Amino acid sequence: MTPYRTLESRFTRIGTLGEAAAMLQWDAATLMPAGSAPARAEQMATLKVISHEILNQDDTGDLLAAADAQNDLDRWQRANLREMRRDWLHATAVPPDLITALTKACSACEMVWRKARPQNDWQAVQPYLQKVLDLVREVGAAKAARLGKTPYESLLDEFEPGGSTVEIDRLFDDLAGMLPGLIEGAIAHQRAPLPLQGPFPVATQRAVGAELMKRLGFDFEHGRLDVSLHPFCGGTPDDVRITTRYDEDDFTGALMGVLHETGHAMYERGLPAAWRRQPVGDARGMSVHESQSLLVEMQACRSREFLEFAAPLLREAFHGKGPAWEADNLYRLYTRVERSFIRVDADEVTYPAHVILRYRLEKAMVAGELKLDDLPAAWNAGMRELIGIAPPTDREGCLQDIHWYDGAWGYFPTYTLGAMTAAQLFAAAIRANAAILPGIAKGEFAPLFAWLRAHVHGKGSLLTTRELLTEATGSPLDARIYEEHLRRRYLSA
Amino acid sequence: MTPYRTLESRFTRIGTLGEAAAMLQWDAATLMPAGSAPARAEQMATLKVISHEILNQDDTGDLLAAADAQNDLDRWQRANLREMRRDWLHATAVPPDLITALTKACSACEMVWRKARPQNDWQAVQPYLQKVLDLVREVGAAKAARLGKTPYESLLDEFEPGGSTVEIDRLFDDLAGMLPGLIEGAIAHQRAPLPLQGPFPVATQRAVGAELMKRLGFDFEHGRLDVSLHPFCGGTPDDVRITTRYDEDDFTGALMGVLHETGHAMYERGLPAAWRRQPVGDARGMSVHESQSLLVEMQACRSREFLEFAAPLLREAFHGKGPAWEADNLYRLYTRVERSFIRVDADEVTYPAHVILRYRLEKAMVAGELKLDDLPAAWNAGMRELIGIAPPTDREGCLQDIHWYDGAWGYFPTYTLGAMTAAQLFAAAIRANAAILPGIAKGEFAPLFAWLRAHVHGKGSLLTTRELLTEATGSPLDARIYEEHLRRRYLSA
Repeated sequence: MTPYRTLESRFTRIGTLGEAAAMLQWDAATLMPAGSAPARAEQMATLKVISHEILNQDDTGDLLAAADAQNDLDRWQRANLREMRRDWLHATAVPPDLITALTKACSACEMVWRKARPQNDWQAVQPYLQKVLDLVREVGAAKAARLGKTPYESLLDEFEPGGSTVEIDRLFDDLAGMLPGLIEGAIAHQRAPLPLQGPFPVATQRAVGAELMKRLGFDFEHGRLDVSLHPFCGGTPDDVRITTRYDEDDFTGALMGVLHETGHAMYERGLPAAWRRQPVGDARGMSVHESQSLLVEMQACRSREFLEFAAPLLREAFHGKGPAWEADNLYRLYTRVERSFIRVDADEVTYPAHVILRYRLEKAMVAGELKLDDLPAAWNAGMRELIGIAPPTDREGCLQDIHWYDGAWGYFPTYTLGAMTAAQLFAAAIRANAAILPGIAKGEFAPLFAWLRAHVHGKGSLLTTRELLTEATGSPLDARIYEEHLRRRYLSA
Repeated sequence: MTPYRTLESRFTRIGTLGEAAAMLQWDAATLMPAGSAPARAEQMATLKVISHEILNQDDTGDLLAAADAQNDLDRWQRANLREMRRDWLHATAVPPDLITALTKACSACEMVWRKARPQNDWQAVQPYLQKVLDLVREVGAAKAARLGKTPYESLLDEFEPGGSTVEIDRLFDDLAGMLPGLIEGAIAHQRAPLPLQGPFPVATQRAVGAELMKRLGFDFEHGRLDVSLHPFCGGTPDDVRITTRYDEDDFTGALMGVLHETGHAMYERGLPAAWRRQPVGDARGMSVHESQSLLVEMQACRSREFLEFAAPLLREAFHGKGPAWEADNLYRLYTRVERSFIRVDADEVTYPAHVILRYRLEKAMVAGELKLDDLPAAWNAGMRELIGIAPPTDREGCLQDIHWYDGAWGYFPTYTLGAMTAAQLFAAAIRANAAILPGIAKGEFAPLFAWLRAHVHGKGSLLTTRELLTEATGSPLDARIYEEHLRRRYLSA
């Protein structure tokens, strides 16, 4: 076997173990009885350790170098090799003791946070978060030495391969400059929606969600829709499992949640089957992944076109009557803008402001420029600057998100990078194929997904994120396209 | 680390991978969309290969020998070592090429069998079964050389550790001698039951099943009840998952099926937690496992005592009225005896005859004493001898069971060994604690399971099957106790 083939066969095994772990993870989040959690944690840890051992064998570095020197590799194999090296660098950059210490610190911190948040007790969790932050900074430094990036970029790279803070700063500063005005304008411009009267039975909500999933092209022969506390898209490309949660008093959240997760699912399902279980066959990164969910949710399904199609379907399913069930009112409901404290409840316009705040704060904390003592005040100042309101308590402020307490530093920017990418891809798609928008207005998504398969899904990790977007849309990420989308939807319609 | 500890840590990993595989297996049988089957097969195969690699390292034999020589091992550790060696012998006795050839032959044969059975086409599947049988005989010979047993016993040993054909022949011949008379007597003696009028909604059946599971002591914090085509007990001791299938026209099958699987589940859940993921912590073997399901189903829950308790509960749940819903009629339904061709539909009295037939035939085929050409005729002759009827077609004869076509040779006798073991354990239990039978009559199973935990479940694989039974009941397996049970229930009540 050539060095490349040897690596490929090892990564096949790693990828297959990853699939097994993904199914166990899905089960843990949906069906698993509570008492089984410790045993499940052991199972997950064992799969992870074995994968790490395979990746981190003594000869991996030599094999990567020898494979690099092979002159018989095609374009996909070269890209696969690049991604293998990236996985290996991340896996081996940090001493095992440090990983263990961070895992323990995160676990302890998250446990304290789960109590501290409802009790609004920042003081209680601060020392635990300090421990996490100290270790995260150590991890960042260790990865920086290996990857040749800054510590923050090294953390970011795990979620957003090749992510650059110079570029993100530029994009986010641009956006931050126009957001306060846009928020104000949108609030002034919008018309109040009429409320929809429930209750809305869960079985009906599920049936409507599944029906729309099918129209989007979700293949129930290769996936499922279930319920979990926190909705997610899990499983594997051959068995994509999305979840939602239902509220009998309001179907709009679960419905749009299902469409959002279906966007993720279509990406997973569309990844190149020929490269299954190889790094190059994986999704490109978190911003591209989020772009696929937001493209479906924000670009396609919160559009007037889609809601014109969906309105009669919803009326019929829920036996709705009157003007509240007209497409125009659904559009008002689904594009409502409001200044609020909680990111996960935020609308399309205020959401990026929440993300920019967190990005700026976490970058400063990793750089050692912002101390935890000053975090609550910095949070509130940032909220005032970006959204125009400050939370009355830390519970609605710096205690609200699990990410930092759980060790996910460098993740936040991918949400808004994803939203911007979604707008740019959607603009390119409807420019490339005039049938896409009229299709959406009839509930026909085949033209849209044909374009996405060709330009995004089927590419896996062949290209860098920047190359992918440039090839698909003609330019790298451009904040103006996203701004145009927001202006068009919220200021002019 | 001592040699023993090194082995223990390797077996922990193997055991944990086995848990992961068990969960994936459960998922595949209950929820998995059909299109995901090939990917799931890859995941399962990878877990199996990795386990095999861990077990089959070059130094395993030396480590086992060195651990044997350690003088610091306690009783459980010694037994663990014995079971480790057994696993290793089985795993390494057969050349990998032969395993692969058998797996492929079974897969091909099973596929042909799935069509041949409904079409009653023995000729079509015979060459495929011949290939399987040839390879099974090769495996038997390879294992025989390693284990120092006969080929058939070597196959049997995988399901029934230490199983002896001399002993099984004696037990089964004994039973076979009295079965025709018992079947005839039971049929003459029984009173026809009144039919129960449905439909019986699935949700109600499920609720009643779950209610009875709880009364038996099933812990839903560590397990689930779901639906699958073929009911089974799967998962792990910390997450025991049983399944059933519902028929809206007849609840009696699903209900007793749930109780049967709960017997398996209580065994798994009661295995010694201190030895989790070690061979000595596993269930003792298939006959003991089957004894636990049959003890619950046949000994406890088809008794007059239990049905007196269950009758009002069932009447209330299904809104039943009249004499058909009296305990006496339920007892008649649940102890109905009938000569029939299909094993899986057979009652408690004719079932052993089906099993004895298969055992005799498979033993003769493995020994080369019975050719496949002669199988259909031998089957029909055996049916006539043991049950008094012969099937009109092979579909109701030698084509009915998946076992041989799928490569499970040496499995059949464990069903009836389990039934005999169940009778013997139950007799000892009610002798040891006078509160057990009155408990069952009130739906209180704690006394019964306290005895089973102490004498069976909590022992894991500490003892051999023979030792286990002798310690628990005072004697090794004794066909007369089982016969007495059958006579008492079917000839005298």
